Amino acid sequence: MNTASHDTVRALEWRDEGLYLLDQRLLPDQEQYLCCADAASVAQAITDMVVRGAPAIGVAAGYGAALAGAAAWRTHGSGWQAGMAEDIDTLRRSRPTAVNLGWALRRMEAFAARLPEDQDPAPALLAEAQAIHEEDVAANRRMGRSGAGLIQPGSGVLTHCNTGSLATGGLGTALGVIRTAWADGRVERVFADETRPWLQGSRLTAWELAADGIPVDLLADGAAAALMRTGQVQWAIVGADRIAANGDVANKIGTYAVALAARQHGVRLMVVAPTSTIDLATPAGEQIPIETRDAREVLYAGGRRIAPESEAVGAWNPVFDVTPAELVDVIVTERGVVHQPDADGIARLFEGAG
Amino acid sequence: MNTASHDTVRALEWRDEGLYLLDQRLLPDQEQYLCCADAASVAQAITDMVVRGAPAIGVAAGYGAALAGAAAWRTHGSGWQAGMAEDIDTLRRSRPTAVNLGWALRRMEAFAARLPEDQDPAPALLAEAQAIHEEDVAANRRMGRSGAGLIQPGSGVLTHCNTGSLATGGLGTALGVIRTAWADGRVERVFADETRPWLQGSRLTAWELAADGIPVDLLADGAAAALMRTGQVQWAIVGADRIAANGDVANKIGTYAVALAARQHGVRLMVVAPTSTIDLATPAGEQIPIETRDAREVLYAGGRRIAPESEAVGAWNPVFDVTPAELVDVIVTERGVVHQPDADGIARLFEGAG
Repeated sequence: MNTASHDTVRALEWRDEGLYLLDQRLLPDQEQYLCCADAASVAQAITDMVVRGAPAIGVAAGYGAALAGAAAWRTHGSGWQAGMAEDIDTLRRSRPTAVNLGWALRRMEAFAARLPEDQDPAPALLAEAQAIHEEDVAANRRMGRSGAGLIQPGSGVLTHCNTGSLATGGLGTALGVIRTAWADGRVERVFADETRPWLQGSRLTAWELAADGIPVDLLADGAAAALMRTGQVQWAIVGADRIAANGDVANKIGTYAVALAARQHGVRLMVVAPTSTIDLATPAGEQIPIETRDAREVLYAGGRRIAPESEAVGAWNPVFDVTPAELVDVIVTERGVVHQPDADGIARLFEGAG
Repeated sequence: MNTASHDTVRALEWRDEGLYLLDQRLLPDQEQYLCCADAASVAQAITDMVVRGAPAIGVAAGYGAALAGAAAWRTHGSGWQAGMAEDIDTLRRSRPTAVNLGWALRRMEAFAARLPEDQDPAPALLAEAQAIHEEDVAANRRMGRSGAGLIQPGSGVLTHCNTGSLATGGLGTALGVIRTAWADGRVERVFADETRPWLQGSRLTAWELAADGIPVDLLADGAAAALMRTGQVQWAIVGADRIAANGDVANKIGTYAVALAARQHGVRLMVVAPTSTIDLATPAGEQIPIETRDAREVLYAGGRRIAPESEAVGAWNPVFDVTPAELVDVIVTERGVVHQPDADGIARLFEGAG
């Protein structure tokens, strides 16, 4: 199934009537799969970040909807379409920022609405969820190609968070571009921000790259600006959790700081995301809801409390920040690339699309 | 001895013929003092970051030189001045970036050269080391006052790394300003970058502030730019490990990223450092030697390995970065403040000084 080289990892697998998720909370120490046999456990796994990354959340939600439909048929028979609504709502509320989640659920709902009432919908719903998954991998392959084509041979790249096979159906968005460009010999050196507080860079990106034999140097997030100043990177390549209609990009906290430093040093910023990440209903970045997570994520590191236990000590822990479109050099999607993104450029991606 | 309120912590204490250092590697979990009875153990403690922070390193080195002189008298008698040279060299090599280290050692050497050969120099050397220590605290009090005076009542401030009593002889540089401004009611909210990889913000700054009853919100370093965008902070206040003659500032890795984000958002940047941090022999930031420490600092967090064990996974771990003078709004020293620092402004600090 993995035809590309440097592409061996998968975070989601459907087998034996259940969705198996590689538990990303335990990486890189343990490779343990969690089996979700119903929609509620898929929603919980999304909330708990067993699975994370906007496209992977979308794929997981698709399978969750298929599980919801199957359960509704078992409970309600021909009333299954109305019966799955509550599970869909639970899935929708599992994370607030990634728009791919809502996109996948709307697609599954629309598909379910066209199925006959009086027939077990499970096989058809599963096939649709698998189609979402396969299309995501195919989109990543296309984005990998077009993104890699923008990179001059001999480049150094910096990435932030994890946007690889663990964050998507497979291959990855930003990391898919880096994998492809590495295989092409265009990228000579990969740097990854460790990405506090959840350490997706150290725990996940480094793990994926090591698994595929691609060397990586990790750095503290605060060091990215200093790295760019040394001239060792030509591109910063990141994913997105939601892109507004004007091209503003919500992505992992720290992305905005990377974007500011990149602009300062003539490092180009590439955002790689499938069009399911674009939310035309959100005009600009200010309207994107930003999830805040538990202060403990900041007060702990490596599973241990690092800050003193005191009522005087709190934390400010937004999970995402917004990078304004004017700091983005190019957005790479499966439908094409948008240079110097703005509302017109984003709208053109959807022209003629069904 | 601690006359200021919100000022209860001390990192260095001379007692019973030895230098007691609060072991900052163990904070905030354990408060353990390490006793250094000779110059070599002081140097090792500096290298190992038992004591850190440019001014505290200078103070520790002063005591180290006093211990070196006492030992040389015991071994060499009247040859003690030449006899202490090797220990001074060991101390000088213990950390490369903080210029206060060399400054304190030169002062102790010059002082030693004026002492009689044929008399135990220990009491005089100790008194000189204590003078360095006391002058540092007094300088911090003066800087605290003048820095706080620049802050409008009702402000929010962001700091990076630890620049408090743990980083100095006492009170602190940037954190001395914040302590003073807090006591004055000028600062309403304190944010602190956690400051990876060593987590000085979470482990040390939060611990000091909590000990003094000043509430603090920690954040991931990558979140600082997003914080500034929210309008919650008016000043970013940091220390310095070395200031070049043109006003360029070497400070903890991540400071440069803070400076870029501050300029973007109209947040003012205050650098607080005694004039012993200024190195007139270094014309500009490019000439400042930047220490690189063990990759393990990045590959571990909270005492645990966070990145996968793999030959493919390395780390880029410079300890300091350089913020160009043009991003600094004001440098606060014990001899006065320099607005929009440049070579002339820095030079004026030293006019008429002996």
